[in-house]
Amino acid sequence: VSCGDPQRAGMRPISFVRQVIAVCLCPELLTEEIFPLDVRIRAQKLLEACDGQSVGSYTASSGLPHVRQTIAEFIMKRDGVPAYAENIFISSGAQRVFIKLLSGGEGQHQTGVLVPQPCPHTLLPVLDEAGVMAVPYRLIEEKNWAVDKSELHQALTTYRGRCELRAIYISNPGIPTGHLQDRKSIEEVIEFAAAERLMLLVDEVYQDSIYAPNREFISYKKVLFEMEKHLRDSVELVSFHSLSCAFVAECGLRAGYMEVVNIDSRVMHYVDTLLCTDINAPVTGQLALDLMLNPPKLGDPSYNTFAQETLLTQATLARNAQRALKLLNDLPGISCQPAKGGIYLYPHLDLPPEFRRQAKVRKGLEPVVFYCQMLLQEEGLITGPGQHDERTGSHHLRLCVLVPPDALDEVLYRLSTFHLRFVDSDVKSRK
Amino acid sequence: VSCGDPQRAGMRPISFVRQVIAVCLCPELLTEEIFPLDVRIRAQKLLEACDGQSVGSYTASSGLPHVRQTIAEFIMKRDGVPAYAENIFISSGAQRVFIKLLSGGEGQHQTGVLVPQPCPHTLLPVLDEAGVMAVPYRLIEEKNWAVDKSELHQALTTYRGRCELRAIYISNPGIPTGHLQDRKSIEEVIEFAAAERLMLLVDEVYQDSIYAPNREFISYKKVLFEMEKHLRDSVELVSFHSLSCAFVAECGLRAGYMEVVNIDSRVMHYVDTLLCTDINAPVTGQLALDLMLNPPKLGDPSYNTFAQETLLTQATLARNAQRALKLLNDLPGISCQPAKGGIYLYPHLDLPPEFRRQAKVRKGLEPVVFYCQMLLQEEGLITGPGQHDERTGSHHLRLCVLVPPDALDEVLYRLSTFHLRFVDSDVKSRK
Repeated sequence: VSCGDPQRAGMRPISFVRQVIAVCLCPELLTEEIFPLDVRIRAQKLLEACDGQSVGSYTASSGLPHVRQTIAEFIMKRDGVPAYAENIFISSGAQRVFIKLLSGGEGQHQTGVLVPQPCPHTLLPVLDEAGVMAVPYRLIEEKNWAVDKSELHQALTTYRGRCELRAIYISNPGIPTGHLQDRKSIEEVIEFAAAERLMLLVDEVYQDSIYAPNREFISYKKVLFEMEKHLRDSVELVSFHSLSCAFVAECGLRAGYMEVVNIDSRVMHYVDTLLCTDINAPVTGQLALDLMLNPPKLGDPSYNTFAQETLLTQATLARNAQRALKLLNDLPGISCQPAKGGIYLYPHLDLPPEFRRQAKVRKGLEPVVFYCQMLLQEEGLITGPGQHDERTGSHHLRLCVLVPPDALDEVLYRLSTFHLRFVDSDVKSRK
Repeated sequence: VSCGDPQRAGMRPISFVRQVIAVCLCPELLTEEIFPLDVRIRAQKLLEACDGQSVGSYTASSGLPHVRQTIAEFIMKRDGVPAYAENIFISSGAQRVFIKLLSGGEGQHQTGVLVPQPCPHTLLPVLDEAGVMAVPYRLIEEKNWAVDKSELHQALTTYRGRCELRAIYISNPGIPTGHLQDRKSIEEVIEFAAAERLMLLVDEVYQDSIYAPNREFISYKKVLFEMEKHLRDSVELVSFHSLSCAFVAECGLRAGYMEVVNIDSRVMHYVDTLLCTDINAPVTGQLALDLMLNPPKLGDPSYNTFAQETLLTQATLARNAQRALKLLNDLPGISCQPAKGGIYLYPHLDLPPEFRRQAKVRKGLEPVVFYCQMLLQEEGLITGPGQHDERTGSHHLRLCVLVPPDALDEVLYRLSTFHLRFVDSDVKSRK
């Protein structure tokens, strides 16, 4: 439950996405009545967008033009501001490509990127491999993992002269913290980026998974485009989205995209070049992006099934998050901030001093890693150890809540059984 | 016709591969009778090999264990020597990953890799991006593009001290030359690699496409394993294969694998790490690999269709290569070595001195690039300009012959129309 892989845990895929791709793979299904008419019509349309009308052909390195156009239209509809297909790049690893692009320099000229602490657990290895220095800015746990201006400035001050800061990475809704920035918070970050001439790298992959009542996702782009003209025309923004989002969750199909705004045309050219020597996104994944962002509409034969499937996922995610939150906060020594979106909870764990000492001295492990190992050994439960925060020394677990309800029951049962025993043995050992 | 994308040109996919993946995407098709029984049985088996029985889940970074096992069994059957799943790594870009792994060093310590001249047109940008120096060894055109020992030694001598040579890259059957090494030639290369302590990087993607009569593909691994024990136990070998091969030609599904032999366990560990931060191959592509290497057998319901489809491709490829070869050699100023396998022909082009001068001085282009541009402008035909060979100064075209016969007719017609006009205008201009 730590890996953010809903289908592995038993969540069901969106039938429409799967059916259209199946027809694209086997065009003989176009004339069969096994799938609804809109599935077949869409498949026909997508096949016409593929070279040789086949998903077996290569695509341009930035992706199928038809799908880039669909993505642009999705963004326009979402934000109410213009979006252009030529600013969209489809890739299996858009983030990785872009980070590679920023990398360079050594010593005090090494490229640095501000990254939230905690951040998505996959981010640091990617930065590391690209030779980019991660400069952490702390999210304020007590304020519901808020992005805090003074923390941003403090990170700047601490790292000034140690690297060349070129960008700030944001995860919104936050992975693994589940926080959601409101317009004001986003404006603050944009103003900060503008003042410090930093590029904004915004991971918005869980934009479709807000479950907190009366809250909605606002994209960085929308906020930027509603700010003053000098910001709107100058702040460099790259936004990422992918099939691994909550509702489609087609992690195995491997495709995502980035939209770039205000990026220098020379850099744009370099993006294209990098994508050329990189690996194209698989055509099946590109088509899945098209289907995810342009799903069936009310009145289409597939609409009811689609609506039921997404409502079920939505309800499961909201209920699971609520149940898990309550149980976690009822356990002694665990406290968890309520999340507003995304697929993780990130509970804070009090680990007794003697346990921490044992983990470090006897096992040579971070205490929370040792805790997760015990949990795995004793209850067969896989959880993600939270990122180590040197400053606060606090410990966290990463828990994915986008799983079927009975799987969550099992997870919560094993976690609480283990944790109560853990607390109990600590109390006894101190007597 | 230059891009090596058979399905784009109109070649048909293998139905069995497509149908099984379609059923894996839409498991509701398991109980329908629309596809043959063996398709459904195989789909069921592959779904059981996926986490959560879904193609939407992540896989291990080195690929699905079930598919790695299928690959190992395919290799064992092909070569008659042992192969192990743990030495197989599935990836969308195995070559790229491995080259990155070799890279490092600057100045005279920069990693160098011996590469054939001509080499696959996608190779040099990949080496360049990884900061690896390409050290060319010439293939002997007059000897049917043979790999020549003295050329290998000469490349060594020329580049000694300019970089640290760590590997030799081989393309067999050769891209774009279509040559095929026999056992003796392979043994020579292996002995050379052993003597110079070079790793063998062998691209064997077109192993399924030998059409020369009485010739067959022999893998480097088979030859190595039948040589003396000290070689068999020491020569480092990495062999690449992929879905982009001739018969399946599922370029858009994006998956391949590498098998590593005699690679140091520390390097193996590093491969695993690199694959972790790289992009997993899409699950649909991984399944296609399984189906490509373990196709229907005689007696299976899908066998007849499968056999017809592959026979048709085989016949098309052989006939096309023969027809194109004859026409090219009939054209004035063009001569082409007969190819034995692969999907390209690589004809030699005599370009008149005046044309070469004009291309360079007036257009700033390599003469053959200018020729290809004219061909595109005047006849709408896309061909690949051959790699520039500084030493011989010769010019070549890259022509993909794995296209439907009527498409080839069209290509040959336009090429000869253009070329005869080209020759004619040169003759006139000299009068």
